[in-house]
Amino acid sequence: MDYVEIDCAKIDTGRLKRKGYSEVVYCECKTTEQLIEIFKTFKNNNQNALGTRASIEQFKALKKELPEIKYNSEARTLSLIQKPIAKTGEIAICCAGTGDIPIALEAKETAEFFGSNVKCYFDIGIAGIHRLIDKIEEIKCANVIIALAGMEGALPSVIAGMVDIPVIAVPTSIGYGSSFKGITALFAMLNSCAEGITVVNIDNGFGAGYSANQINCLIAKGKNR
Amino acid sequence: MDYVEIDCAKIDTGRLKRKGYSEVVYCECKTTEQLIEIFKTFKNNNQNALGTRASIEQFKALKKELPEIKYNSEARTLSLIQKPIAKTGEIAICCAGTGDIPIALEAKETAEFFGSNVKCYFDIGIAGIHRLIDKIEEIKCANVIIALAGMEGALPSVIAGMVDIPVIAVPTSIGYGSSFKGITALFAMLNSCAEGITVVNIDNGFGAGYSANQINCLIAKGKNR
Amino acid sequence: MDYVEIDCAKIDTGRLKRKGYSEVVYCECKTTEQLIEIFKTFKNNNQNALGTRASIEQFKALKKELPEIKYNSEARTLSLIQKPIAKTGEIAICCAGTGDIPIALEAKETAEFFGSNVKCYFDIGIAGIHRLIDKIEEIKCANVIIALAGMEGALPSVIAGMVDIPVIAVPTSIGYGSSFKGITALFAMLNSCAEGITVVNIDNGFGAGYSANQINCLIAKGKNR
Amino acid sequence: MDYVEIDCAKIDTGRLKRKGYSEVVYCECKTTEQLIEIFKTFKNNNQNALGTRASIEQFKALKKELPEIKYNSEARTLSLIQKPIAKTGEIAICCAGTGDIPIALEAKETAEFFGSNVKCYFDIGIAGIHRLIDKIEEIKCANVIIALAGMEGALPSVIAGMVDIPVIAVPTSIGYGSSFKGITALFAMLNSCAEGITVVNIDNGFGAGYSANQINCLIAKGKNR
Amino acid sequence: MDYVEIDCAKIDTGRLKRKGYSEVVYCECKTTEQLIEIFKTFKNNNQNALGTRASIEQFKALKKELPEIKYNSEARTLSLIQKPIAKTGEIAICCAGTGDIPIALEAKETAEFFGSNVKCYFDIGIAGIHRLIDKIEEIKCANVIIALAGMEGALPSVIAGMVDIPVIAVPTSIGYGSSFKGITALFAMLNSCAEGITVVNIDNGFGAGYSANQINCLIAKGKNR
Amino acid sequence: MDYVEIDCAKIDTGRLKRKGYSEVVYCECKTTEQLIEIFKTFKNNNQNALGTRASIEQFKALKKELPEIKYNSEARTLSLIQKPIAKTGEIAICCAGTGDIPIALEAKETAEFFGSNVKCYFDIGIAGIHRLIDKIEEIKCANVIIALAGMEGALPSVIAGMVDIPVIAVPTSIGYGSSFKGITALFAMLNSCAEGITVVNIDNGFGAGYSANQINCLIAKGKNR
Amino acid sequence: MDYVEIDCAKIDTGRLKRKGYSEVVYCECKTTEQLIEIFKTFKNNNQNALGTRASIEQFKALKKELPEIKYNSEARTLSLIQKPIAKTGEIAICCAGTGDIPIALEAKETAEFFGSNVKCYFDIGIAGIHRLIDKIEEIKCANVIIALAGMEGALPSVIAGMVDIPVIAVPTSIGYGSSFKGITALFAMLNSCAEGITVVNIDNGFGAGYSANQINCLIAKGKNR
Amino acid sequence: MDYVEIDCAKIDTGRLKRKGYSEVVYCECKTTEQLIEIFKTFKNNNQNALGTRASIEQFKALKKELPEIKYNSEARTLSLIQKPIAKTGEIAICCAGTGDIPIALEAKETAEFFGSNVKCYFDIGIAGIHRLIDKIEEIKCANVIIALAGMEGALPSVIAGMVDIPVIAVPTSIGYGSSFKGITALFAMLNSCAEGITVVNIDNGFGAGYSANQINCLIAKGKNR
Repeated sequence: MDYVEIDCAKIDTGRLKRKGYSEVVYCECKTTEQLIEIFKTFKNNNQNALGTRASIEQFKALKKELPEIKYNSEARTLSLIQKPIAKTGEIAICCAGTGDIPIALEAKETAEFFGSNVKCYFDIGIAGIHRLIDKIEEIKCANVIIALAGMEGALPSVIAGMVDIPVIAVPTSIGYGSSFKGITALFAMLNSCAEGITVVNIDNGFGAGYSANQINCLIAKGKNR
Repeated sequence: MDYVEIDCAKIDTGRLKRKGYSEVVYCECKTTEQLIEIFKTFKNNNQNALGTRASIEQFKALKKELPEIKYNSEARTLSLIQKPIAKTGEIAICCAGTGDIPIALEAKETAEFFGSNVKCYFDIGIAGIHRLIDKIEEIKCANVIIALAGMEGALPSVIAGMVDIPVIAVPTSIGYGSSFKGITALFAMLNSCAEGITVVNIDNGFGAGYSANQINCLIAKGKNR
Repeated sequence: MDYVEIDCAKIDTGRLKRKGYSEVVYCECKTTEQLIEIFKTFKNNNQNALGTRASIEQFKALKKELPEIKYNSEARTLSLIQKPIAKTGEIAICCAGTGDIPIALEAKETAEFFGSNVKCYFDIGIAGIHRLIDKIEEIKCANVIIALAGMEGALPSVIAGMVDIPVIAVPTSIGYGSSFKGITALFAMLNSCAEGITVVNIDNGFGAGYSANQINCLIAKGKNR
Repeated sequence: MDYVEIDCAKIDTGRLKRKGYSEVVYCECKTTEQLIEIFKTFKNNNQNALGTRASIEQFKALKKELPEIKYNSEARTLSLIQKPIAKTGEIAICCAGTGDIPIALEAKETAEFFGSNVKCYFDIGIAGIHRLIDKIEEIKCANVIIALAGMEGALPSVIAGMVDIPVIAVPTSIGYGSSFKGITALFAMLNSCAEGITVVNIDNGFGAGYSANQINCLIAKGKNR
Repeated sequence: MDYVEIDCAKIDTGRLKRKGYSEVVYCECKTTEQLIEIFKTFKNNNQNALGTRASIEQFKALKKELPEIKYNSEARTLSLIQKPIAKTGEIAICCAGTGDIPIALEAKETAEFFGSNVKCYFDIGIAGIHRLIDKIEEIKCANVIIALAGMEGALPSVIAGMVDIPVIAVPTSIGYGSSFKGITALFAMLNSCAEGITVVNIDNGFGAGYSANQINCLIAKGKNR
Repeated sequence: MDYVEIDCAKIDTGRLKRKGYSEVVYCECKTTEQLIEIFKTFKNNNQNALGTRASIEQFKALKKELPEIKYNSEARTLSLIQKPIAKTGEIAICCAGTGDIPIALEAKETAEFFGSNVKCYFDIGIAGIHRLIDKIEEIKCANVIIALAGMEGALPSVIAGMVDIPVIAVPTSIGYGSSFKGITALFAMLNSCAEGITVVNIDNGFGAGYSANQINCLIAKGKNR
Repeated sequence: MDYVEIDCAKIDTGRLKRKGYSEVVYCECKTTEQLIEIFKTFKNNNQNALGTRASIEQFKALKKELPEIKYNSEARTLSLIQKPIAKTGEIAICCAGTGDIPIALEAKETAEFFGSNVKCYFDIGIAGIHRLIDKIEEIKCANVIIALAGMEGALPSVIAGMVDIPVIAVPTSIGYGSSFKGITALFAMLNSCAEGITVVNIDNGFGAGYSANQINCLIAKGKNR
Repeated sequence: MDYVEIDCAKIDTGRLKRKGYSEVVYCECKTTEQLIEIFKTFKNNNQNALGTRASIEQFKALKKELPEIKYNSEARTLSLIQKPIAKTGEIAICCAGTGDIPIALEAKETAEFFGSNVKCYFDIGIAGIHRLIDKIEEIKCANVIIALAGMEGALPSVIAGMVDIPVIAVPTSIGYGSSFKGITALFAMLNSCAEGITVVNIDNGFGAGYSANQINCLIAKGKNR
């Protein structure tokens, strides 16, 4: 069978075969008991596992049961690595401001978990555009770019106007007042006058990392990898 | 008395003295009869008058009664000039795309009506940022900048990052889908990570021209003009 | 210089070199005079040109001046082909309902203009999921999928759960009441519980086609094409 | 008289006769004192009573006064059972993800309180649709389905495309960013392209359980029960 | 095979067997050519067919090809009846105001097409509640109620407080200003303090009729009909 | 019986006795046939009748059948006066701009129909506050004030700060961009920092006139009139 | 002078003369130091003073300085009564549910502070409409009604359909999900199909009490009180 | 180079030369470690530095490392002054209510940091307009006005109607219910019927102070300062 039934969930162990990638666990709305049960299932099936939006409390509880589990406290990711991960290609992650770094790191952890090389460029927002111009030739060498911004969300548009590779835009919830916790950035990115941008949900570093990895691996290894 | 009562309105003829500028007539929701009555009152009080959001039909009807009235069909402005207007200083109007031109011209007509020199820069949106960089030294010479953009509304932010003069941002209703007829651009401008931006209502070329003129004249002539 | 200045615009003729692809003309808010001037500039620079959201009236006026221009009345695209286009790889375009077809064709025209092979799958919405299941093996052969849906916008999520290639989701404005002209579909797609989805603006067939082509060509030809 | 007046409320003890079902107490905005007064009234009138959205603190305070009261801490329901409840028919409760379980249990508690048999299917969301397909024949045996989902809210649409019985859709507040605490799922469900779906408020497990029970009982026992 | 492929669509002729009911054609976004092709397919498969949101122009064009097709100009429904329809049970359709009648009739046409008896109660809105009280005993005899209202959308709540059968609430777009074309009524219905209400999309008479018929038939005939 | 059943409606002829005032007919969503039937019913029951939001076409059709019916083309009201109306007290209607006049006149027609004296003050918006200050002593003599404004909707707040009588605020749909067809004015009025303001729906001159008349008559005549 | 300048505020001591009523202090966003300064100013000017939205902490701090100050912990009001208040007329306050009581009490405290008699009717929401019908004759005896409801906000509409006196509707933030903290109730009340309703802001018991008192006193005492 | 790279940021030390003003640090989403690193960089580059939205905890941690840093606990600003600041011209800051004072002080701190004289006018909201009228002649002497208001946001409009200098409007989040944390005030200000207003984001005292200072300095010192 393609999944394992536990009390609270049906672990999609067949996803690795079906989609090429393991299931990822969204930890935010799960109890510690549920997480332990889920990660043990992955362990017993000898699969690598990644958890996102995990709290330090969840990590501590899991660590007691599964001492090999790792936690990135900025990215808030859990990882259970049972088989080594080979990395390929390159993804450039570009961040408008210091506040966007945690989401950038969630994207980085995700893309690396699934097999991509990642390079980060922090604090290159458009208020001082010379900082971006300085780095653009280096950024262009990647196969795909992840660009994060809160507030007015203009960074992905400015980058996309300068490169010929796909840009995945991640609106972040950084800002106040009419930034509406990232909605303004989200809509700005969806309405970019520059071509070559696609968008994921607010603060969805995971989704951006997942899709960027998919694209990067297909470019690096070709379709029939 | 400071105003003239007519049937449908109280013409604020005292505004010239009180605020330094005549009242401007918002034509959109007025009948032709009302507009004729209003413009005749300005004529009889020997004041210059500006009308905004006027249709070609309104202009044609007014012209029969007041042959000296002028119409700018792109800007949709009416002007009744009875006393010559001296111009001072300089305002730079910057437009992201071709579709923003009508609103840019409404701003230009307004600022010139109240006594500013205006210079326009069209189609310098961020999808090809080299076009903006080419012009920025010239733009910086103005006393104040009006920057218009629809869609993601990033142009004012990028400009403000490069200059040290005030930028008045005008969101336009150009775009579709989640541009929400200019709301996305409006919110993006209000949340700019670059300093030195203030914002007016969507498609409010008039308001931008009015405020830019106020600032330009105060800079060019000083406070006690 | 990298662009050509005409009255209303600065044609970004350098984009082909800079971004690998020509500029595309968004026709909706432009006058016929502006469009003629723009397309003539592309012709004089011997570049292929694509126009989106063009009306039949705009086409007829352009055709008088540029008889070689072509119009796809369903997709509402104009194309001026001066150099033959070689096609590579494959993009699968999947449409939930009959009403989504015009946007699907805009995506198809765009992707083909930039050099991709495209295959379309119409009316495979989730109300009769066996229709999708029948086609999924064939769809999976593409390098990238464009999935369009209005109303509840579930098709991209269901497809992404079944494949291991990137899915670009296009919300369409098909629906009524609380579909809010595509906003419900847009948000549904951004919140997909399936991984591997990125999203473009409502009815943005062009943007989906552009990004899908970028990804497809990079996969088919590798990074240093 | 059909109701009992207490200080803060008018207990609708006649509802059992008038509507066939007792009043249910929404505990969230009530003080402990008010709840004690209300539940005592039900006890004194020898009626079964159900409370929803009750906190553990409210339960503890009530238990001191009414030791026979029961609490389901996941579903957050209180129940005071004074007369045994006979159960009939069958309702299938289907849950997209682990995070939806508390609301599913509120629906279950409600439907059972009013006399329905209930069967639960957890974690059968569309990201791994084979898990749903595996269970669908069993689900179809029920008289009515309750389908819960957060995020993109697609599960009820996919289920409704496969069955010929009524589906009551419950959007949950699971998700982040543009899920808007369940609003995206709510609108997606209201716009389903599949027929046979009606919708209740976000996280309204109670309402879904109540309506599902009404329908189930009418089917199982006929109209003139 | 369970569906018939035509150019623009895949006609789900297997739905009758799979879901117990034929596919219904949403006409609004379809061309006349598409509709003719679709209805001919139903005719050739000897299935009854219903079209909703059809214009008089669409009907006239269809009638030339399929003279037996019928049109209800108030309900805007097309029907192609090739096999007689037996009716069972009873649905009560209750309408707050005169303006809600077209949507009520869409619900009626749908429910009758699928085999329910329907009785209509017009103009019994809450501004004159004695009109509703006069009819409530008669309304209660039905198996299920459809209640429509625009503006403040209170009618379904008031009815549900008086009966012990399911109420399907249909918000209509009747109103102005902050009625937001039915959104206010939609949200009011979702938040009803009365139990036993489920809701469909704004102006979705079809969806209400479909679900009400499902419930009515299950009550009248039992599950294993 | 308290109402008269006609085909499309139940005319609430008992409302005069029950509520002290006749029913008023909202014409916008009614067919001409329905209006004729309704107004004839009022005529046959010898009641005065008022119609709001009536088009000139509706009036012309009605006039053929009921020659005594009157139409106010600015206010868009129909009136059928069969019994003379005595007027009492005084209502002051204050309008911010010329564009608000039609809604002001709907309020005036309504209040006069039900028995109030009305005095109008046009174009006293806050951009030239001296015009309002000039009139405030006269305005204060009324029993109740109706204050209308579009755009930023500040007039009712400024007036309420100056008087000690009730102010009914009417937001109008005058404005553009982020005025959102009156929503900005509506919310501004609901959030007034001045006390003594209550609010009606956008453009609801009728509602304001009705409530103002109720209050005015109770003040002028006392409770047991 | 008509006001007293203190550090943080200009106390409008002239309001009593100008508007007939003292200024009321909105405590929520003020520091304890500011409140003490403000209330002392009222005390020194020998005026009665009312504070709304006061916390228990604010009260305790004030009580140390002004021992005569009173606090109503349910209504969250502070009152400093230095001159006795004579009461007149009658206001009926009607509450849909138990959760609305705190706001109802804020309205009651306000109306009584300014000189009205008040009578309260709790828990008469429309889910059990017989409870309202039982009380309606008594309610009708008041000069004005305040009707509060959260959730679907239908109570004011149902009441207004039954009476011929003004109804001031107060939406409350009771509810969850798509109640949007009172916005659904607010819009429902603004769109009531029953006449004679005006509306105040969400949870604005103070505003309703103030306006109701104004109307009640004018009815009870006449205009030239 | 024009910026200094540290771990988490690229400090734009060239901004002083490029834009005439130092970079300002938005502290809200930064860790204490990041802030220390950033302020030390400014110190080492001998630049003045301003931090906004700083918490008392952040200040205490910074003070240990940089004892010369100052904190304004009402305005929540940090300042590191290494070179004395000369002040010029005058800005008038006008505040509707006591709750707006913290944002007014953020504007004041910012404008003074960059070299403007500032004068504050508190609690001159429109509910008692005589307080504003008393001060208007003094306010008019400034070069530019910052006007803050929450709730209905009318103060900037009323002021702009009385003066002939630029007004920068700052909506604040003071209010409740449909004030939507400042959105109502924001939209009201954007839709002002008075000319000469531009707007910044909700609670953006910093942005208003920055832009007002720019304008004030240009007026006081002329363009080529």
